[in-house]
Amino acid sequence: MYRAPVEEIAHTLKKVAGLDNAIAQGRFGDLSDDLVDAILEEAGKFASTHVAPLLEIGDKHGTPLKDAEVTMPPGWKDVYQEWISSGWNALTGKEEFGGQGLPMMLAIATFEMWNSGSMAFGIGPTLTLGAIEALEAHATDDLKQTYLPKLVSGEWMGTMNLTEPQAGSDVGALRTRAERAEDGTYRIFGSKIFITYGEHDLTENIIHMVLARLPDAPAGTKGISLFLVPKFLVNADGSLGARNDVFCSGVEHKMGIHGSPTCTMIYGDGFAKGRDPGALGWLIGEENRGLACMFTMMNNARLAVGIQGVAVAEAAYQKSLAYAKERRQMRAPGWTGEGMSPIVEHPDVQRNLLTMKGLTGAARSIAYACAHALDMAKTGTGDDARHWADRANLLTPVAKAFSTDIGVDVASIGIQVHGGMGFIEETGAAQFLRDARIAPIYEGTNGIQAIDLVQRKLPLDGGEHIKAYIAELRAVAEAVTASNSADFGDTGERLQAGLDDLESTSVWLQQALAKGEISEAYAGATPYLRLFGLASGATYLAKGALGGENAGRTALARFFAENLLSETSALKDRVIHGAASLLGARSALAS
Amino acid sequence: MYRAPVEEIAHTLKKVAGLDNAIAQGRFGDLSDDLVDAILEEAGKFASTHVAPLLEIGDKHGTPLKDAEVTMPPGWKDVYQEWISSGWNALTGKEEFGGQGLPMMLAIATFEMWNSGSMAFGIGPTLTLGAIEALEAHATDDLKQTYLPKLVSGEWMGTMNLTEPQAGSDVGALRTRAERAEDGTYRIFGSKIFITYGEHDLTENIIHMVLARLPDAPAGTKGISLFLVPKFLVNADGSLGARNDVFCSGVEHKMGIHGSPTCTMIYGDGFAKGRDPGALGWLIGEENRGLACMFTMMNNARLAVGIQGVAVAEAAYQKSLAYAKERRQMRAPGWTGEGMSPIVEHPDVQRNLLTMKGLTGAARSIAYACAHALDMAKTGTGDDARHWADRANLLTPVAKAFSTDIGVDVASIGIQVHGGMGFIEETGAAQFLRDARIAPIYEGTNGIQAIDLVQRKLPLDGGEHIKAYIAELRAVAEAVTASNSADFGDTGERLQAGLDDLESTSVWLQQALAKGEISEAYAGATPYLRLFGLASGATYLAKGALGGENAGRTALARFFAENLLSETSALKDRVIHGAASLLGARSALAS
Repeated sequence: MYRAPVEEIAHTLKKVAGLDNAIAQGRFGDLSDDLVDAILEEAGKFASTHVAPLLEIGDKHGTPLKDAEVTMPPGWKDVYQEWISSGWNALTGKEEFGGQGLPMMLAIATFEMWNSGSMAFGIGPTLTLGAIEALEAHATDDLKQTYLPKLVSGEWMGTMNLTEPQAGSDVGALRTRAERAEDGTYRIFGSKIFITYGEHDLTENIIHMVLARLPDAPAGTKGISLFLVPKFLVNADGSLGARNDVFCSGVEHKMGIHGSPTCTMIYGDGFAKGRDPGALGWLIGEENRGLACMFTMMNNARLAVGIQGVAVAEAAYQKSLAYAKERRQMRAPGWTGEGMSPIVEHPDVQRNLLTMKGLTGAARSIAYACAHALDMAKTGTGDDARHWADRANLLTPVAKAFSTDIGVDVASIGIQVHGGMGFIEETGAAQFLRDARIAPIYEGTNGIQAIDLVQRKLPLDGGEHIKAYIAELRAVAEAVTASNSADFGDTGERLQAGLDDLESTSVWLQQALAKGEISEAYAGATPYLRLFGLASGATYLAKGALGGENAGRTALARFFAENLLSETSALKDRVIHGAASLLGARSALAS
Repeated sequence: MYRAPVEEIAHTLKKVAGLDNAIAQGRFGDLSDDLVDAILEEAGKFASTHVAPLLEIGDKHGTPLKDAEVTMPPGWKDVYQEWISSGWNALTGKEEFGGQGLPMMLAIATFEMWNSGSMAFGIGPTLTLGAIEALEAHATDDLKQTYLPKLVSGEWMGTMNLTEPQAGSDVGALRTRAERAEDGTYRIFGSKIFITYGEHDLTENIIHMVLARLPDAPAGTKGISLFLVPKFLVNADGSLGARNDVFCSGVEHKMGIHGSPTCTMIYGDGFAKGRDPGALGWLIGEENRGLACMFTMMNNARLAVGIQGVAVAEAAYQKSLAYAKERRQMRAPGWTGEGMSPIVEHPDVQRNLLTMKGLTGAARSIAYACAHALDMAKTGTGDDARHWADRANLLTPVAKAFSTDIGVDVASIGIQVHGGMGFIEETGAAQFLRDARIAPIYEGTNGIQAIDLVQRKLPLDGGEHIKAYIAELRAVAEAVTASNSADFGDTGERLQAGLDDLESTSVWLQQALAKGEISEAYAGATPYLRLFGLASGATYLAKGALGGENAGRTALARFFAENLLSETSALKDRVIHGAASLLGARSALAS
């Protein structure tokens, strides 16, 4: 069973991602080191004792739909209610709406724990958080007063409604209609698919954030507006009123995260009789500016999905390590104990476990660094705020895609460590892979993230931001070398080599874009993002090792630098020399 | 739905793996090019029209157990009966037992097709084939006459019973007992787990090949004997007699291949009343020499599992390519068509599809080359036979592990190409990953294969065999360069660089073994095996491109050489420089 790695999480937050500095700068008010520890400790307990037991139950029972109502798996509602009672949903909410106003870094750290316990549980509050952020940033005061207190507390949950059958990655292709009503509200008509937590019985009300198109809207992404559509209308006194005309018509049968209901939602199809047709909706932000509002939700959701990759990797690693210490087969070279050795003693199994742990730690560092940048941007002003906003923007696609890719990889290695038992569902190792496999897809596929990184993030601050970022990482590599510690082996020079690869590919891609070689740049996007993740993750692991005496941390940073990081040279080659043979091979896909 | 790539399979057999040469040498009697084509064509039809429709049914229905009897999924028995009626099970069997005596190359090619249709279906006959080979090589004439005709025809199926809870990779730890009876037969007592097709209703009888230990046997692997234990005893006239005391007590709930019953088998527990206790068994080969007999089955089973990796990769690729040509989202760079472009036009999707196709083709080539070596060894004598036996031994772990690793990778990429639809079970993309995930585990985990490659295969012929193999591959690279074809781009020099990496790591590992640095050598085993697979697979793809005019083949070989093959430098680095930081990082696994 999962045990939250509280010490490792705290160390990464403080020594790697920048929490110590931010507290020292007074960025987070009276937040103290002790309070951080106490919060993490409590969250860890809740995740281990309450959330983790939901994992298998959710997988087994799923979320059956009957008469447009979804029943969550046994025990889930109780845990959710206890979870919000303990204030976990309100961590980052504004204090005026009942939130605790704590940094995103802490929220992301706790999200890691909920998701390690159960990804299907963790994804629900992720979407509520997105709705809260969109409302905080763009809604009228009336809407804020009506909805935010209950969303912040978690008494109600939120959803994001983007996807339609013809509009997946291409949100501009959506067709859901919104019509203006005379009273300033709107009527929504259409259907959405793949709506996570679109319907469930965890909360009395569900607040849908829905992208739709006004009759006179321009085509494409510039004609999309964002609407708030509650499941139940809310009376002036805050009590629940009539059922709105939005219903769940189907729940997907998925490979994993069975405890998370993935719904088809029908808006304005007249299921709720006796009223004017259409689902009642309220505009968020301005008409036709819905995509900008949605990005407020989506950027943080991308980071939150990234942390799901870290979370499932951590859980898979823990289970595999425990198994490898217990299971005995054969005698490892040099084994002097009685009988067969635990398989953790076999070098090949050690490679698997170290790879799992290294990738998990690297991805965690990147995700936390991204959360840190969001906090710094929020607490800064002027150039400082802009710098940190750029940093958050730069790291978001990496935090999303690198973490979720390694989530799949690590879960798959975890099955391998278990041998035949890994393929048996009761063991639980297989579920991690089934659950993890969605994260590289939702909230923007990892291919989309990679293109976003190349197309929109490399040019930040005229290309200066990525330069400065790499320079910061190089300073860590130099500090490793300067430490003169034999335990680091070749870590310092390995990091510099990886950062050389990151720098030269960054320059190459920027030049390709400048020359209008768009296909060539996009062809290299996915290998570039992985290179970015490996090089920065390796550096963060070393930074963590420098940040505190711990033989294990140094050994892991060295293993990463001397084993996993060597992949960057191949990735660089793919970016810089791979495009011609890729773009020229369309004929190989003829049949 | 899967369509067998008959032309590609035939080309790989003939021009890459060596079938043309073997036929020209008269190795395969009167087997003609036309007959090969006809067999492949017919197998392809059967796989597409009969086997592939079983895929989803098997996944959905599984193989329920009731009162020790397993019911196969709807329709499976009919297809199996038609499959054996068409003679597909008898392809390689000896003619004296009703077989067609055809080469293993053809069997492996058809196994690829059955497994592309349904891995859960394909694995059953794989085990029957193993039983046939063990009996042909080691059984008494009486046993051969009694069992081989019906196993060759497929009227009965066979199983392999190795694993016990404490004896997985370490077969020497098994405890199942065999006691000598006065009439020369044996009584078997004990239980086995993870027995594929251990019980089912496809055939009237099931012939179990069971490893067990005699009371006076030495400990470990030198005290294991192999027994034939039929589900139903066979009367002198060939009719079925009494039910033997071997029963299925459980069927595993697995991540994938739900149509393949994975059984716990209980021997001699008295389920069959009114007889002496113990399951009746007949010795195969000599007492205490069972492991050697088992390896006869296991080597070919490893190749056959390897082809499962190829098979599921091919099926996943086909489904993804079809989806990518159909699905439209956004406008790819340079797209001049109406509206959104098919996603196959996006460079990042092309990278995914080309990676899928390239890895599949590379793995196919290696597996077929291994089958070819088996055929050459069988049809040769003296040094020639020894050379080809060495070649088969060298390639078997690569054919098993590289192919099944890429099977998982390719199936996972296939989900990604499908976007959100990939995670929905009805699409079928997810099932390929769930099915594929077992293949790196069973028949010896891929970690075991890698160690086998390093420990037992590199030293073949005093280390000369691997040298000669690399020299053969270099000749292909030289031919590519000599072709002076611009379409190949840098393929020739890229291949040489990959082969340089293969050569230097091979030498390094041999030296490590010679110095007694066993842990260091084992630490590099997995990256070495992948390097071996990439370098030889890339070379085979180029050989295939040289072997016939086809723009797509050349483009794919170039893509592989210029994109995927660059990984060899990182893998080489892991082998040669990675061991110290790996073996020194035990402290990172402390908690």
